[in-house]
Amino acid sequence: QASKNVSYGKRGMGLEELINEANSYYLSKHLAVIHKKPTPITVVHVDYPDRSMAKITEAYYVQPSTTDYNGVLDGHYIDFDAKETKNKTNMPLKNFHQHQITHLKNVLENGGIGFFILGFTTRSEFYLFPASILIKIWDEALRGGEKSVPYSIISQQGFQINSKMIPSLDYLPALKRFLKYLNV
Amino acid sequence: QASKNVSYGKRGMGLEELINEANSYYLSKHLAVIHKKPTPITVVHVDYPDRSMAKITEAYYVQPSTTDYNGVLDGHYIDFDAKETKNKTNMPLKNFHQHQITHLKNVLENGGIGFFILGFTTRSEFYLFPASILIKIWDEALRGGEKSVPYSIISQQGFQINSKMIPSLDYLPALKRFLKYLNV
Ligand SMILES: [Mg+2]
Ligand SMILES: [Mg+2]
Repeated sequence: QASKNVSYGKRGMGLEELINEANSYYLSKHLAVIHKKPTPITVVHVDYPDRSMAKITEAYYVQPSTTDYNGVLDGHYIDFDAKETKNKTNMPLKNFHQHQITHLKNVLENGGIGFFILGFTTRSEFYLFPASILIKIWDEALRGGEKSVPYSIISQQGFQINSKMIPSLDYLPALKRFLKYLNV
Repeated sequence: QASKNVSYGKRGMGLEELINEANSYYLSKHLAVIHKKPTPITVVHVDYPDRSMAKITEAYYVQPSTTDYNGVLDGHYIDFDAKETKNKTNMPLKNFHQHQITHLKNVLENGGIGFFILGFTTRSEFYLFPASILIKIWDEALRGGEKSVPYSIISQQGFQINSKMIPSLDYLPALKRFLKYLNV
Protein backbone atom coordinates (compact mmCIF):
# COMPACT_ATOMS: atom_id res chain seq x y z
CA GLN A 1 0.00 0.00 0.00
CA ALA A 2 1.58 3.22 -1.20
CA SER A 3 1.11 6.47 0.70
CA LYS A 4 1.89 10.06 -0.17
CA ASN A 5 1.56 13.57 1.21
CA VAL A 6 -0.19 15.96 -1.15
CA SER A 7 -0.28 19.70 -0.68
CA TYR A 8 -1.78 20.71 -4.02
CA GLY A 9 -3.44 19.11 -7.01
CA LYS A 10 -1.68 16.35 -8.82
CA ARG A 11 -0.51 17.84 -12.10
CA GLY A 12 0.31 21.06 -13.87
CA MET A 13 1.10 22.97 -10.67
CA GLY A 14 3.65 25.27 -12.24
CA LEU A 15 1.17 26.70 -14.73
CA GLU A 16 -1.68 26.55 -12.24
CA GLU A 17 0.25 28.65 -9.72
CA LEU A 18 1.08 31.23 -12.38
CA ILE A 19 -2.60 31.51 -13.29
CA ASN A 20 -3.68 31.74 -9.65
CA GLU A 21 -1.16 34.53 -9.13
CA ALA A 22 -2.50 36.40 -12.16
CA ASN A 23 -6.11 35.93 -10.97
CA SER A 24 -5.27 37.32 -7.51
CA TYR A 25 -3.64 40.31 -9.15
CA TYR A 26 -6.63 40.96 -11.44
CA LEU A 27 -9.02 40.67 -8.48
CA SER A 28 -6.99 43.09 -6.34
CA LYS A 29 -6.78 45.60 -9.21
CA HIS A 30 -10.51 45.24 -10.05
CA LEU A 31 -9.66 44.07 -13.58
CA ALA A 32 -11.53 40.74 -13.62
CA VAL A 33 -13.00 38.15 -11.23
CA ILE A 34 -11.65 34.74 -12.22
CA HIS A 35 -11.21 31.85 -9.79
CA LYS A 36 -9.95 28.30 -9.95
CA LYS A 37 -12.68 25.85 -9.04
CA PRO A 38 -11.94 23.55 -6.10
CA THR A 39 -11.18 19.92 -6.98
CA PRO A 40 -14.40 17.95 -6.55
CA ILE A 41 -14.18 15.50 -3.66
CA THR A 42 -16.84 13.20 -2.22
CA VAL A 43 -16.64 13.16 1.56
CA VAL A 44 -17.60 9.83 3.16
CA HIS A 45 -16.51 10.24 6.75
CA VAL A 46 -15.75 13.21 9.04
CA ASP A 47 -14.40 13.10 12.58
CA TYR A 48 -14.89 15.93 15.05
CA PRO A 49 -11.86 15.73 17.39
CA ASP A 50 -13.22 18.85 19.08
CA ARG A 51 -16.14 21.21 18.58
CA SER A 52 -14.28 23.70 16.42
CA MET A 53 -12.72 21.15 14.09
CA ALA A 54 -13.93 18.88 11.32
CA LYS A 55 -11.37 16.34 10.12
CA ILE A 56 -12.23 14.47 6.94
CA THR A 57 -10.96 10.89 7.32
CA GLU A 58 -12.41 9.24 4.24
CA ALA A 59 -12.98 10.94 0.90
CA TYR A 60 -12.44 10.33 -2.81
CA TYR A 61 -11.67 12.40 -5.86
CA VAL A 62 -14.57 12.53 -8.30
CA GLN A 63 -14.55 13.27 -12.02
CA PRO A 64 -14.99 17.02 -12.61
CA SER A 65 -17.75 18.10 -14.99
CA THR A 66 -16.25 21.45 -15.98
CA THR A 67 -12.93 23.15 -16.65
CA ASP A 68 -10.77 24.52 -13.83
CA TYR A 69 -11.26 28.28 -14.26
CA ASN A 70 -14.17 30.61 -14.81
CA GLY A 71 -15.25 34.13 -14.06
CA VAL A 72 -16.21 37.49 -15.45
CA LEU A 73 -14.47 40.20 -17.46
CA ASP A 74 -16.51 43.25 -18.52
CA GLY A 75 -19.71 41.23 -18.02
CA HIS A 76 -18.48 38.44 -20.33
CA TYR A 77 -18.52 34.90 -19.04
CA ILE A 78 -14.95 33.55 -19.24
CA ASP A 79 -14.14 29.82 -19.06
CA PHE A 80 -10.86 27.99 -19.57
CA ASP A 81 -8.49 25.23 -18.64
CA ALA A 82 -4.68 25.15 -18.64
CA LYS A 83 -2.34 22.57 -20.13
CA GLU A 84 1.42 22.38 -20.39
CA THR A 85 3.91 20.15 -22.19
CA LYS A 86 7.66 19.69 -22.33
CA ASN A 87 7.33 18.87 -26.05
CA LYS A 88 8.67 21.54 -28.37
CA THR A 89 6.72 20.64 -31.50
CA ASN A 90 3.21 19.75 -30.34
CA MET A 91 0.65 19.60 -27.52
CA PRO A 92 -0.60 16.00 -27.12
CA LEU A 93 -4.39 15.65 -27.00
CA LYS A 94 -4.03 13.18 -24.11
CA ASN A 95 -3.64 16.29 -21.93
CA PHE A 96 -7.31 17.11 -22.62
CA HIS A 97 -10.42 15.32 -21.39
CA GLN A 98 -13.80 14.73 -22.99
CA HIS A 99 -15.66 16.42 -20.09
CA GLN A 100 -13.63 19.60 -20.65
CA ILE A 101 -14.40 19.60 -24.38
CA THR A 102 -18.11 18.93 -23.77
CA HIS A 103 -18.27 21.67 -21.14
CA LEU A 104 -16.58 24.21 -23.43
CA LYS A 105 -18.97 23.29 -26.27
CA ASN A 106 -21.86 24.05 -23.90
CA VAL A 107 -20.21 27.33 -22.84
CA LEU A 108 -19.72 28.51 -26.45
CA GLU A 109 -23.28 27.52 -27.33
CA ASN A 110 -24.54 29.75 -24.51
CA GLY A 111 -22.50 32.77 -25.56
CA GLY A 112 -19.56 32.33 -23.19
CA ILE A 113 -15.87 32.91 -23.99
CA GLY A 114 -13.97 29.61 -23.93
CA PHE A 115 -10.27 28.92 -24.40
CA PHE A 116 -7.22 27.06 -23.16
CA ILE A 117 -4.00 28.47 -21.79
CA LEU A 118 -1.34 26.27 -23.39
CA GLY A 119 2.22 26.25 -22.11
CA PHE A 120 5.31 25.00 -23.96
CA THR A 121 7.52 24.90 -20.90
CA THR A 122 10.75 24.04 -22.72
CA ARG A 123 10.24 27.09 -24.91
CA SER A 124 8.85 29.22 -22.04
CA GLU A 125 6.00 30.16 -24.37
CA PHE A 126 2.35 30.43 -23.40
CA TYR A 127 -0.66 30.90 -25.65
CA LEU A 128 -4.34 31.61 -25.22
CA PHE A 129 -5.88 29.16 -27.69
CA PRO A 130 -9.58 29.42 -28.70
CA ALA A 131 -11.75 26.50 -27.50
CA SER A 132 -13.56 26.49 -30.86
CA ILE A 133 -10.35 25.43 -32.70
CA LEU A 134 -9.38 22.86 -30.08
CA ILE A 135 -12.88 21.32 -30.21
CA LYS A 136 -12.56 20.88 -34.00
CA ILE A 137 -9.16 19.22 -33.66
CA TRP A 138 -10.48 16.98 -30.84
CA ASP A 139 -13.48 15.86 -32.88
CA GLU A 140 -11.24 15.15 -35.90
CA ALA A 141 -8.94 13.06 -33.68
CA LEU A 142 -11.95 11.00 -32.58
CA ARG A 143 -12.57 10.30 -36.28
CA GLY A 144 -8.97 9.10 -36.70
CA GLY A 145 -7.11 12.39 -37.11
CA GLU A 146 -3.93 13.67 -35.46
CA LYS A 147 -3.56 12.98 -31.73
CA SER A 148 -1.73 16.23 -31.04
CA VAL A 149 -1.89 19.92 -31.91
CA PRO A 150 1.21 21.15 -33.80
CA TYR A 151 3.13 24.02 -32.20
CA SER A 152 2.82 25.90 -35.50
CA ILE A 153 -1.00 25.89 -35.26
CA ILE A 154 -0.96 27.04 -31.65
CA SER A 155 1.59 29.81 -32.23
CA GLN A 156 -0.23 31.02 -35.37
CA GLN A 157 -3.88 30.72 -34.30
CA GLY A 158 -3.35 31.34 -30.60
CA PHE A 159 -2.82 34.65 -28.82
CA GLN A 160 0.62 34.77 -27.24
CA ILE A 161 0.87 35.67 -23.57
CA ASN A 162 3.81 37.97 -22.95
CA SER A 163 5.60 37.53 -19.64
CA LYS A 164 5.74 40.39 -17.17
CA MET A 165 7.10 41.07 -13.72
CA ILE A 166 3.72 41.20 -11.97
CA PRO A 167 1.89 39.02 -12.67
CA SER A 168 4.37 36.68 -14.37
CA LEU A 169 1.71 35.14 -16.61
CA ASP A 170 -0.26 38.25 -17.52
CA TYR A 171 -2.88 36.63 -19.77
CA LEU A 172 -5.39 39.51 -19.67
CA PRO A 173 -3.91 41.43 -22.65
CA ALA A 174 -4.08 38.22 -24.75
CA LEU A 175 -7.67 37.67 -23.59
CA LYS A 176 -8.57 41.23 -24.61
CA ARG A 177 -7.01 40.67 -28.06
CA PHE A 178 -9.08 37.48 -28.30
CA LEU A 179 -12.30 39.36 -27.34
CA LYS A 180 -11.50 42.00 -29.94
CA TYR A 181 -10.92 39.27 -32.53
CA LEU A 182 -14.31 37.73 -31.57
CA ASN A 183 -15.83 41.19 -31.92
CA VAL A 184 -17.65 41.07 -28.57
CA GLN B 1 -14.78 12.40 19.93
CA ALA B 2 -17.89 12.73 17.81
CA SER B 3 -18.11 11.06 14.40
CA LYS B 4 -20.60 11.36 11.58
CA ASN B 5 -21.25 10.12 8.07
CA VAL B 6 -21.73 12.91 5.57
CA SER B 7 -23.04 12.38 2.08
CA TYR B 8 -23.54 16.01 1.09
CA GLY B 9 -22.64 19.45 2.31
CA LYS B 10 -23.62 20.46 5.78
CA ARG B 11 -26.49 22.90 5.35
CA GLY B 12 -29.24 23.98 3.02
CA MET B 13 -29.39 20.64 1.16
CA GLY B 14 -33.05 20.84 0.30
CA LEU B 15 -32.66 24.07 -1.64
CA GLU B 16 -29.27 23.04 -3.01
CA GLU B 17 -30.72 19.84 -4.49
CA LEU B 18 -33.55 21.77 -6.11
CA ILE B 19 -31.06 24.15 -7.72
CA ASN B 20 -28.81 21.31 -8.87
CA GLU B 21 -31.83 19.63 -10.47
CA ALA B 22 -32.76 22.87 -12.26
CA ASN B 23 -29.15 23.35 -13.46
CA SER B 24 -29.02 19.80 -14.86
CA TYR B 25 -32.28 20.45 -16.69
CA TYR B 26 -31.05 23.75 -18.16
CA LEU B 27 -27.80 22.10 -19.28
CA SER B 28 -29.60 19.20 -20.95
CA LYS B 29 -31.99 21.59 -22.74
CA HIS B 30 -29.15 23.94 -23.78
CA LEU B 31 -30.76 26.84 -21.88
CA ALA B 32 -27.85 27.82 -19.61
CA VAL B 33 -24.60 26.40 -18.19
CA ILE B 34 -24.64 26.87 -14.43
CA HIS B 35 -22.81 24.62 -11.99
CA LYS B 36 -22.40 24.40 -8.25
CA LYS B 37 -18.78 24.84 -7.26
CA PRO B 38 -17.25 21.97 -5.31
CA THR B 39 -16.68 22.58 -1.59
CA PRO B 40 -13.04 23.65 -1.15
CA ILE B 41 -11.06 21.03 0.75
CA THR B 42 -7.35 20.93 1.59
CA VAL B 43 -6.01 17.41 1.16
CA VAL B 44 -3.21 16.49 3.57
CA HIS B 45 -2.86 12.75 3.12
CA VAL B 46 -3.81 10.25 0.41
CA ASP B 47 -3.49 6.47 0.52
CA TYR B 48 -3.32 4.30 -2.58
CA PRO B 49 -4.81 0.93 -1.54
CA ASP B 50 -4.35 -0.18 -5.15
CA ARG B 51 -3.13 1.40 -8.38
CA SER B 52 -6.54 2.49 -9.59
CA MET B 53 -7.66 4.07 -6.33
CA ALA B 54 -6.79 7.18 -4.35
CA LYS B 55 -8.29 7.30 -0.88
CA ILE B 56 -8.05 10.62 0.95
CA THR B 57 -7.46 9.88 4.64
CA GLU B 58 -6.79 13.37 6.01
CA ALA B 59 -8.34 16.56 4.72
CA TYR B 60 -9.99 19.73 6.01
CA TYR B 61 -12.69 22.10 4.87
CA VAL B 62 -11.33 25.51 3.93
CA GLN B 63 -13.12 28.85 3.80
CA PRO B 64 -14.58 29.42 0.31
CA SER B 65 -13.75 32.70 -1.44
CA THR B 66 -16.79 32.81 -3.72
CA THR B 67 -20.48 31.94 -3.82
CA ASP B 68 -21.67 28.42 -4.61
CA TYR B 69 -23.05 28.86 -8.14
CA ASN B 70 -21.89 30.48 -11.33
CA GLY B 71 -22.20 30.09 -15.06
CA VAL B 72 -23.41 31.61 -18.30
CA LEU B 73 -26.79 32.58 -19.76
CA ASP B 74 -26.84 34.26 -23.17
CA GLY B 75 -23.19 35.25 -22.71
CA HIS B 76 -23.92 36.95 -19.36
CA TYR B 77 -21.88 35.94 -16.35
CA ILE B 78 -24.30 34.68 -13.66
CA ASP B 79 -23.30 34.33 -10.00
CA PHE B 80 -25.37 33.49 -6.95
CA ASP B 81 -25.76 31.76 -3.65
CA ALA B 82 -28.82 30.16 -2.03
CA LYS B 83 -30.22 30.63 1.46
CA GLU B 84 -33.29 29.29 3.18
CA THR B 85 -35.08 29.96 6.45
CA LYS B 86 -38.00 28.51 8.39
CA ASN B 87 -38.87 32.05 9.54
CA LYS B 88 -42.02 33.46 7.98
CA THR B 89 -41.32 37.16 8.47
CA ASN B 90 -37.63 37.65 7.71
CA MET B 91 -34.35 36.19 6.40
CA PRO B 92 -31.65 36.51 9.10
CA LEU B 93 -28.38 38.02 7.89
CA LYS B 94 -26.46 35.37 9.83
CA ASN B 95 -27.22 33.09 6.85
CA PHE B 96 -24.86 35.23 4.74
CA HIS B 97 -21.09 35.52 4.94
CA GLN B 98 -18.74 38.42 4.34
CA HIS B 99 -16.78 36.52 1.65
CA GLN B 100 -20.00 36.02 -0.34
CA ILE B 101 -20.87 39.72 -0.10
CA THR B 102 -17.34 40.77 -1.07
CA HIS B 103 -17.31 38.34 -3.99
CA LEU B 104 -20.68 39.58 -5.28
CA LYS B 105 -19.48 43.20 -5.00
CA ASN B 106 -16.52 42.25 -7.19
CA VAL B 107 -18.82 40.46 -9.64
CA LEU B 108 -21.17 43.45 -9.99
CA GLU B 109 -18.22 45.80 -10.40
CA ASN B 110 -16.99 43.68 -13.34
CA GLY B 111 -20.36 43.63 -15.09
CA GLY B 112 -21.63 40.26 -13.86
CA ILE B 113 -25.18 39.40 -12.78
CA GLY B 114 -25.30 38.67 -9.04
CA PHE B 115 -28.18 37.57 -6.86
CA PHE B 116 -29.37 35.23 -4.13
CA ILE B 117 -32.04 32.56 -4.31
CA LEU B 118 -33.91 32.99 -1.01
CA GLY B 119 -36.28 30.32 0.25
CA PHE B 120 -39.00 30.74 2.87
CA THR B 121 -39.51 27.04 3.41
CA THR B 122 -42.51 27.35 5.75
CA ARG B 123 -44.27 29.42 3.11
CA SER B 124 -42.89 27.32 0.22
CA GLU B 125 -41.91 30.58 -1.45
CA PHE B 126 -38.67 31.25 -3.31
CA TYR B 127 -37.34 34.53 -4.60
CA LEU B 128 -34.47 35.67 -6.79
CA PHE B 129 -33.17 38.67 -4.86
CA PRO B 130 -30.68 41.14 -6.42
CA ALA B 131 -27.21 41.11 -4.84
CA SER B 132 -27.08 44.92 -5.06
CA ILE B 133 -29.96 45.27 -2.55
CA LEU B 134 -28.61 42.59 -0.21
CA ILE B 135 -25.19 44.27 -0.21
CA LYS B 136 -26.76 47.59 0.86
CA ILE B 137 -28.69 45.90 3.69
CA TRP B 138 -25.54 44.02 4.77
CA ASP B 139 -23.45 47.18 4.87
CA GLU B 140 -26.17 49.00 6.84
CA ALA B 141 -26.27 46.11 9.33
CA LEU B 142 -22.50 46.48 9.84
CA ARG B 143 -23.18 50.12 10.76
CA GLY B 144 -25.78 49.03 13.34
CA GLY B 145 -28.85 48.47 11.15
CA GLU B 146 -31.32 45.57 11.05
CA LYS B 147 -29.80 42.07 11.29
CA SER B 148 -32.40 40.53 9.00
CA VAL B 149 -34.19 41.22 5.73
CA PRO B 150 -37.98 41.55 6.13
CA TYR B 151 -40.12 39.17 4.08
CA SER B 152 -41.99 42.20 2.73
CA ILE B 153 -38.79 43.61 1.16
CA ILE B 154 -37.86 40.26 -0.39
CA SER B 155 -41.32 39.59 -1.78
CA GLN B 156 -41.63 43.14 -3.15
CA GLN B 157 -38.12 43.73 -4.51
CA GLY B 158 -37.32 40.12 -5.39
CA PHE B 159 -38.44 38.16 -8.43
CA GLN B 160 -40.65 35.26 -7.37
CA ILE B 161 -39.77 31.79 -8.61
CA ASN B 162 -42.89 29.88 -9.60
CA SER B 163 -42.82 26.14 -8.97
CA LYS B 164 -43.15 23.73 -11.85
CA MET B 165 -43.18 19.98 -12.41
CA ILE B 166 -39.79 19.83 -14.13
CA PRO B 167 -37.63 21.35 -12.78
CA SER B 168 -39.33 21.94 -9.42
CA LEU B 169 -37.42 25.17 -8.79
CA ASP B 170 -37.52 26.69 -12.27
CA TYR B 171 -35.60 29.90 -11.54
CA LEU B 172 -34.75 30.74 -15.17
CA PRO B 173 -37.96 32.73 -15.87
CA ALA B 174 -37.31 34.84 -12.73
CA LEU B 175 -33.69 35.34 -13.85
CA LYS B 176 -34.87 36.49 -17.28
CA ARG B 177 -37.28 38.97 -15.67
CA PHE B 178 -34.34 40.21 -13.58
CA LEU B 179 -32.14 40.62 -16.71
CA LYS B 180 -34.96 42.51 -18.41
CA TYR B 181 -35.31 44.74 -15.33
CA LEU B 182 -31.52 45.36 -15.45
CA ASN B 183 -31.89 46.18 -19.14
CA VAL B 184 -29.02 43.91 -20.24
MG1 LIG C 1 -6.21 21.55 -15.60
MG1 LIG D 1 -24.82 28.20 0.14
